[in-house]
Amino acid sequence: MAEVPEGWEARGKPPTLFRRFGFERYGETRAFLDGLAALSEETGLHPQNVNFGTTYVNITLEAAEGGQLGEAELGFAARINALSKAAEA
Amino acid sequence: MAEVPEGWEARGKPPTLFRRFGFERYGETRAFLDGLAALSEETGLHPQNVNFGTTYVNITLEAAEGGQLGEAELGFAARINALSKAAEA
Repeated sequence: MAEVPEGWEARGKPPTLFRRFGFERYGETRAFLDGLAALSEETGLHPQNVNFGTTYVNITLEAAEGGQLGEAELGFAARINALSKAAEA
Repeated sequence: MAEVPEGWEARGKPPTLFRRFGFERYGETRAFLDGLAALSEETGLHPQNVNFGTTYVNITLEAAEGGQLGEAELGFAARINALSKAAEA
């Protein structure tokens, strides 16, 4: 399996990836959520769950069809990391 | 206190309002989330927590500053109900 991107932890059964993102202001949270929605439209990949408040977003990614985490999920996680950095800028 | 809008239940301490919205497709979920973000920008009110997956959105509203639920929160909940109906259309 490819390396798990920075800040993400592999969890449980079925295999999932979870990460919490924190932001200074709602505007950043909103920019991140908008970017996440656009990324989902582009890739056809959707987080299994997204849990957010004003200044945080918790994301859980699940392996497709009960399989193992693969390049698709790990690449998706890495791109979400990039979105979070962009949202903070 | 004004009447709790259809489908919402008052919960706990601090007082909160919770409702789960279910959708047929991600497109509806997305339309609902976009509408919710626009409504937050318009009103300056933000859910205490939003938890969503592809076809559901769970929303928790909390009373401002630890007070009681008032017209602001109940009105916000009623407008979120309207958004969910619009998203399904």
